[in-house]
Amino acid sequence: MSRTPPHPTREQIELPLVLDCLSDPIRLAIVYQLAQQERVSSELCCGDFNGLSGKSNLTYHFAKLRDCGLMQTRVAGTNRFMRLRREDLEARFPGLLDAVLKSAAKDADRLQLVAECDVVEAD
Amino acid sequence: MSRTPPHPTREQIELPLVLDCLSDPIRLAIVYQLAQQERVSSELCCGDFNGLSGKSNLTYHFAKLRDCGLMQTRVAGTNRFMRLRREDLEARFPGLLDAVLKSAAKDADRLQLVAECDVVEAD
Repeated sequence: MSRTPPHPTREQIELPLVLDCLSDPIRLAIVYQLAQQERVSSELCCGDFNGLSGKSNLTYHFAKLRDCGLMQTRVAGTNRFMRLRREDLEARFPGLLDAVLKSAAKDADRLQLVAECDVVEAD
Repeated sequence: MSRTPPHPTREQIELPLVLDCLSDPIRLAIVYQLAQQERVSSELCCGDFNGLSGKSNLTYHFAKLRDCGLMQTRVAGTNRFMRLRREDLEARFPGLLDAVLKSAAKDADRLQLVAECDVVEAD
């Protein structure tokens, strides 16, 4: 039995759900961190986000990000690995993810987003 | 006494609030319609949106759009005129509004957005 949780197909990704998902500061921070890390690794595991919130709260946010199609979750043993569904998002809404990430970067201090160097050093 | 309702300053416009505001399909449709109309007129009045929802519901959505900084409301007599705060949004989050509008246009049928010709004909 596969333990991979359900994901929407590319075609099922809906703009209102994506915007709603990104409107939460913690989910925006998760997406921002995944995007920052993309150059180093396409995936991060749950523990990489511990600085953002408590474990059960993060689990809830991961599910929301998966359900709206922003994030792909891969289960390996007891670990879960997350990556941005950048290609799917770009195919559905060209330029949207980058515009949101750029906006978030501009307000990184105000949004208390993790700095790029923090992510790299955490490796 | 001025009857102009309060608006956030450019600097007070916050990304999570803007994204949350745009995640509602009716508010997204209002913003889309304002953007479509910009080439003809920078302002629309309440009645121009009657096709989207009931009057009291629209009043609620106009207030949300105003409070998050997406829209400017001008009161003239018994009329209210609305326009997009494009310059302020572009200054705060370059490219974001256009990326959202482009994404919305791509899903116009799915989101039941008013077609450009409908808006122009409604004049």
